[in-house]
Amino acid sequence: MKAIVFDVFGTVVDWRSSLIHQFAELGKELGYELPGEALADQWRQLYAPSMDRVRKGEIPWTNLDDLHRESLVQLLDQHGIVLNEATIDRINPFWHQLTPWPDVQRGLKRLKEDYIIGTLTNGNVSLMVDVARHAELPWDMIFCAELFEHYKPDAEVYLGACRLLRLPPEEVMLCAAHNADLRAARALGMKTAFIPRPTEYGPQQQKDLAAEEAWDFVAEDFIALSEQLGK
Amino acid sequence: MKAIVFDVFGTVVDWRSSLIHQFAELGKELGYELPGEALADQWRQLYAPSMDRVRKGEIPWTNLDDLHRESLVQLLDQHGIVLNEATIDRINPFWHQLTPWPDVQRGLKRLKEDYIIGTLTNGNVSLMVDVARHAELPWDMIFCAELFEHYKPDAEVYLGACRLLRLPPEEVMLCAAHNADLRAARALGMKTAFIPRPTEYGPQQQKDLAAEEAWDFVAEDFIALSEQLGK
Repeated sequence: MKAIVFDVFGTVVDWRSSLIHQFAELGKELGYELPGEALADQWRQLYAPSMDRVRKGEIPWTNLDDLHRESLVQLLDQHGIVLNEATIDRINPFWHQLTPWPDVQRGLKRLKEDYIIGTLTNGNVSLMVDVARHAELPWDMIFCAELFEHYKPDAEVYLGACRLLRLPPEEVMLCAAHNADLRAARALGMKTAFIPRPTEYGPQQQKDLAAEEAWDFVAEDFIALSEQLGK
Repeated sequence: MKAIVFDVFGTVVDWRSSLIHQFAELGKELGYELPGEALADQWRQLYAPSMDRVRKGEIPWTNLDDLHRESLVQLLDQHGIVLNEATIDRINPFWHQLTPWPDVQRGLKRLKEDYIIGTLTNGNVSLMVDVARHAELPWDMIFCAELFEHYKPDAEVYLGACRLLRLPPEEVMLCAAHNADLRAARALGMKTAFIPRPTEYGPQQQKDLAAEEAWDFVAEDFIALSEQLGK
């Protein structure tokens, strides 16, 4: 194994708490309370369906920043929240300012000593550059859907990263908090590591609480994964 | 200006000294002296013509690692040097282990505080990942020819990086030691910074010793550039 690529939303960063916090801050500034938890959860619920429109060919390639904005407009409308364009333009980049889970920075630093580390994410390049700068994530490379104009779980994303690394899939491992993502990677011959993030979706989370298959590695967090890999 | 992208071979790393050093080390191991200077210079002379074959459509997209290998085989043949495949496979990655100029690491670190920094190089992703790891270059992103399947100075490479950054060209600056590269960037609306590297091609270097146009910035090295930009 030469390289480890990471799912980002949920696996590396705590998108939900970060969004809720940013909605609260914006609400204070605007002078009225925004329903941050509902907006965060529902915005994320629109994520997979929005990408599926691209994956099924219903709309041409559209990057995640633009899908996020369409979903946001729809969501604000459903909630009857009226904001001007300039304010909406400030909310969409909330996804660029996400906080990593506490083990991430130290774990990635240790893993980078022995492996090439990169993202394998549906977020677009500029979004991921901003997340990495904000969260101080020392990626060797940002591999993402936008480079291949396909969204995970399309095979093109996983195999595209392996091709750019010039490595066969068995020398590349996907690390993710989501069993479905790992299933797609394993089906293509990649190694797999599951890291549970049991509060990604909040205190009532029902799915991805545990490994659903015998993944190559299952570790509590990135530091534990680095220890399993001999650090 | 939001982002600075850098030419790599010559601008960031001293490819010539690095290659010569690695040829010398290999020669010691093999027990006979390789003509390191000639091999380094002639290998680099085959660089532009090899990419031009792709740029003119004579051969399909081929990444730089593969072009380098073809050129190397041709060169060894010209010199009557007979090496087995395994040894040739050890020489081609010399390009993955290049040493940065002395100002680079400190300069990039300072520039990264205020700007997104990335490569804008004809080297492929895996080559650039290895160079960055070897030379400890803290890129936010590796933008390279391979992502766009075009070699500089094709416009697709420059505009492709701007598109992925979601920035207009005038908010992105190319930093390079080569006037021709800067001319291509300026023609597309990008900002430009010239850094002379007067020994890139050895002590007898004739070209790119000075700025040939009034580039937006001309600085002695990366640290001086960061100072001109207000650090």
